[in-house]
Amino acid sequence: MVEFSTIECKEYTVVHFKLDEPINPEDLAKLNPPKVNCTKGIIISGRGPIWLYCYLVHYYHMTKFVATYDPRFGGAVVVESHIPSFKPGDIIEIGETESMDLI
Amino acid sequence: MVEFSTIECKEYTVVHFKLDEPINPEDLAKLNPPKVNCTKGIIISGRGPIWLYCYLVHYYHMTKFVATYDPRFGGAVVVESHIPSFKPGDIIEIGETESMDLI
Repeated sequence: MVEFSTIECKEYTVVHFKLDEPINPEDLAKLNPPKVNCTKGIIISGRGPIWLYCYLVHYYHMTKFVATYDPRFGGAVVVESHIPSFKPGDIIEIGETESMDLI
Repeated sequence: MVEFSTIECKEYTVVHFKLDEPINPEDLAKLNPPKVNCTKGIIISGRGPIWLYCYLVHYYHMTKFVATYDPRFGGAVVVESHIPSFKPGDIIEIGETESMDLI
């Protein structure tokens, strides 16, 4: 249904999801997002509906910061942060080769 | 920039946004979302990027529940809840006339 994968980076974990078929709201109850290291931030990436992103943002709110990948900006936009070095609206740039795998 | 409006309903407040021009990530720092009654839930609606929705979901996380409007389901999908009567994945149906104003 939803296939998750992670990439560990120094300051954050990229949590990437891939939908093999369209997801429905009731599937949220069955999701099993990967465990992450909460002493780092996370970047969520994948092609999916807004409510899936929003669910995951709350799911990972105990991490240092949460950012969502947006190919328009070549990186991820910080949407929530509990540390001063990352603020909402900051863009975390991701290398081109890396980003190709994230979309 | 971002024009907010609210509609009070019995169990939730609809927070609707309208962008008069494309929003940029750095605009998040200047946002001034409306105050809401935290003893109710909220529904976020509007046409905008995923990271704006995600920012608002965290911004309103102290409310009873947060749902995001999705016209595909004729209502809003609960993405976060602190009360048992609304669970992630639940759809809060919104009347057709009302929903026309929300998109």
